[in-house]
Amino acid sequence: MSPQLYTDSADTSFKVREVQYAVRGEIAIRAEELKNELDTKGSNLPFKEIVNINIGNPQQLKQKPITFFRQVASLVEYPDLLLEENQEKVKTLFATDAIVRAKLLVDACGGSVGAYSHSQGIPHIRKNVAKFIAERDGFPADASKIFLTMGASAGVQLALRFIIENSKVGIMIPIPQYPLYTATLSLYEGQAVPYYLDEEKDWGMDIGELKKSIDEARQNGVDVRALCIINPGNPTGQCLAEQNMREVIAFCQQERVVLLADEVYQENIYMPSTRPFHSFKKVLKSMGPSYDDVELISFHSISKGMIGECGRRGGYFECEGIEQEVIDEMYKISSVSLCPNVQGQIMVDLMVNPPKRGDESYESYQKEIDDIYQSLKRRSSRLCDAFNELEGVTCNKAEGALYLFPKVRLPAGAIKAAQDVGKNPDDLYSLAMLNETGVCVVPGSGFGQEEGTTHFRATFLPPEHLFSEFIELLKRFHQGFMDKYRD
Amino acid sequence: MSPQLYTDSADTSFKVREVQYAVRGEIAIRAEELKNELDTKGSNLPFKEIVNINIGNPQQLKQKPITFFRQVASLVEYPDLLLEENQEKVKTLFATDAIVRAKLLVDACGGSVGAYSHSQGIPHIRKNVAKFIAERDGFPADASKIFLTMGASAGVQLALRFIIENSKVGIMIPIPQYPLYTATLSLYEGQAVPYYLDEEKDWGMDIGELKKSIDEARQNGVDVRALCIINPGNPTGQCLAEQNMREVIAFCQQERVVLLADEVYQENIYMPSTRPFHSFKKVLKSMGPSYDDVELISFHSISKGMIGECGRRGGYFECEGIEQEVIDEMYKISSVSLCPNVQGQIMVDLMVNPPKRGDESYESYQKEIDDIYQSLKRRSSRLCDAFNELEGVTCNKAEGALYLFPKVRLPAGAIKAAQDVGKNPDDLYSLAMLNETGVCVVPGSGFGQEEGTTHFRATFLPPEHLFSEFIELLKRFHQGFMDKYRD
Repeated sequence: MSPQLYTDSADTSFKVREVQYAVRGEIAIRAEELKNELDTKGSNLPFKEIVNINIGNPQQLKQKPITFFRQVASLVEYPDLLLEENQEKVKTLFATDAIVRAKLLVDACGGSVGAYSHSQGIPHIRKNVAKFIAERDGFPADASKIFLTMGASAGVQLALRFIIENSKVGIMIPIPQYPLYTATLSLYEGQAVPYYLDEEKDWGMDIGELKKSIDEARQNGVDVRALCIINPGNPTGQCLAEQNMREVIAFCQQERVVLLADEVYQENIYMPSTRPFHSFKKVLKSMGPSYDDVELISFHSISKGMIGECGRRGGYFECEGIEQEVIDEMYKISSVSLCPNVQGQIMVDLMVNPPKRGDESYESYQKEIDDIYQSLKRRSSRLCDAFNELEGVTCNKAEGALYLFPKVRLPAGAIKAAQDVGKNPDDLYSLAMLNETGVCVVPGSGFGQEEGTTHFRATFLPPEHLFSEFIELLKRFHQGFMDKYRD
Repeated sequence: MSPQLYTDSADTSFKVREVQYAVRGEIAIRAEELKNELDTKGSNLPFKEIVNINIGNPQQLKQKPITFFRQVASLVEYPDLLLEENQEKVKTLFATDAIVRAKLLVDACGGSVGAYSHSQGIPHIRKNVAKFIAERDGFPADASKIFLTMGASAGVQLALRFIIENSKVGIMIPIPQYPLYTATLSLYEGQAVPYYLDEEKDWGMDIGELKKSIDEARQNGVDVRALCIINPGNPTGQCLAEQNMREVIAFCQQERVVLLADEVYQENIYMPSTRPFHSFKKVLKSMGPSYDDVELISFHSISKGMIGECGRRGGYFECEGIEQEVIDEMYKISSVSLCPNVQGQIMVDLMVNPPKRGDESYESYQKEIDDIYQSLKRRSSRLCDAFNELEGVTCNKAEGALYLFPKVRLPAGAIKAAQDVGKNPDDLYSLAMLNETGVCVVPGSGFGQEEGTTHFRATFLPPEHLFSEFIELLKRFHQGFMDKYRD
């Protein structure tokens, strides 16, 4: 008897099958196999470890968590640590301001971090998020329009769920893009409406390209309802200029599309004087009341920045210009999943309300953040320089985010070899890199790239002291690969 | 200009609008308003607090978390607590076995609980889940067929996502049911195929009723693919007898439907000698190889039992008889959300692998679990007895789970009054209860109930010392309500 569940179905239109998610695709699975092989004694592999630069997972690559944040996270878990009678002992292990914060947060949870919270997130924490946004942007924010989420991904999925009413609805997404977007569109049976970022202009965004893309889609009967922007870019690392953002907002108003602003890398800014981060909320509000009808949803996360608390799954989104009726419906849908995990919510509180000047933990907090930031900045340049030294490779600088997306001009022989085994050239290249060096990247095709080009995405997250060795490995691999397939 | 997002659409078939989730519906929202009113000085309400017995949220109602579990949860968060140099101090606050476990778990996370884990869940923890299942059932379990999830709800939603290939697909659900099921079916545009539990027979499950329900649906063109069972029942509290479960499994084989077994209340068993818990996995395996083609997905959670760690969002599901291809696809879809939150995963490890006899924390752990269990058992009887003493109310005993679902025979005047204001009689009754006593329950219509009957769901989770006062409040309200509308 054949199985009932899904595989015996004749319904080939079932979208779950079409979902692609390259960041954890074939190459990531191969990397896992190799890791298991390395863990087995007697492996004959030509490398000693797998270096996962395929995914922005800082703490996997030994980035240290922020002490104050983790002190609070630890204290809220075990109520005895907050008892008066234990304070003498506890204070030898934890900072006093961490203890104060932990008590405040446990109270805000109604006495225990183990209880379901409000489905939209703990009100006290949402108020702190609103305060953070208001201070960042200079414009007020409303806690009732903020949703805490299990990572930004969950927020993006909730928003897309609301916009994709039927399979004619199209969502504009950048190419290259973070594959959460294409995967979610497949899942919800919406149409991807791609617009291209311009590699020659530092992955810049061009309004003409947006216009061309939306017009074409609409001519083809697609009901385009939203524009997704990742700023700073993933995998491309660009930071949008304020003037460019104003044009984008005007475009959204003109074309009546909701603007979805994925701003999870807002703290990862490596050229702050020439390419600072501006939030879409701030730019929109600065354009005055004639733009109040623009609908904007902005996303943020605890997974990136200098925090890197990916595994905890925390984030938020803010609605601006969105009808109350829609927010009520979003709340209803959120309530089916009961609540975002409280531990993620607590880290959101810490992110938006870190120690202030004068607090006991302020200096150590600031030093930890600065050290990580400076190191990321150095690592981004160093890896970019190394890529640009490789034969046939060009790589734009990371103005922001955690990735580089170099272009590799492969010899015709490599492209032929890929065709012969039914692979994309970038898959062939990335798989060879993994098999020879243990370095795991994501092939460019997983993000989308211009027809006929080859890219890969790499994070610059490995520990700085391993960079020389790791770059040397990549160089040797690349030269060998080019030599092997040279015309 | 009208808004773009969702509300201006003419697409009235958009399913998000139809989603209903009564546990956090109108009455829960009204309870929040009343709570805000109570927090404001000078409230004139006839009660001093809101008693939320609408939702199984033990720690909101002051149930204490398990000490060993929270010690480990606390230790994994702050790496300094695991440093050799701090052990002397740390051991004055934490048990040694908690420290050992915390080190093991941090290692299993690759060194930090802040890193993304494997998308299916940390392999070490999945192995412990498999061991727990094997020991519970006496049949082997395979870690590669277990998925850790953000609460059981996320697991149920993932499974339903896979089964509902198109809008003709129907899923059998019990009536009354936990509204996660109907809400998710609305969201994924599947068809609910209801089967009724028999209130007169302690909410028993009848194979004739299942057969009648599936035949009717299939005659109407519904492609019935799965049968959902909640055992122990929510809101109904019944525990299925082994013989009944064998019949259900044979039914699933005969009718070729996937069995989805929601077993999150498996530890909440109040008549263990006459109504013990049997897992569907155990019963299925005990039926021998001729039933190996039955497809079963079983769900469990850290939110219930005596643990009650709802806000942490942790759970798992196990696939039995499910094709590897489907499991691979489930992994792919899980990977789009990156990973279940690590803090939830850690609590799953603790749930399935608690302190053992001889461990330092064993006795205190066992005592805490026993105390909560005995108290829940007492509270379930006491509230059930109180309901049965009310005029026109009958209530089945809770054999398991955390709820009672009494039937209220309302006077015709009350039914007329409800009609006059366009409400269901159970909404009128529950709302009056809330407004007069501050006690918040869920009207029966949110779970489904037989036409013309009136029920509500109440947890028996309030602290035991408040029971006399709280029951007295309910009694007075009920009598007043009956008197007001008496024929």
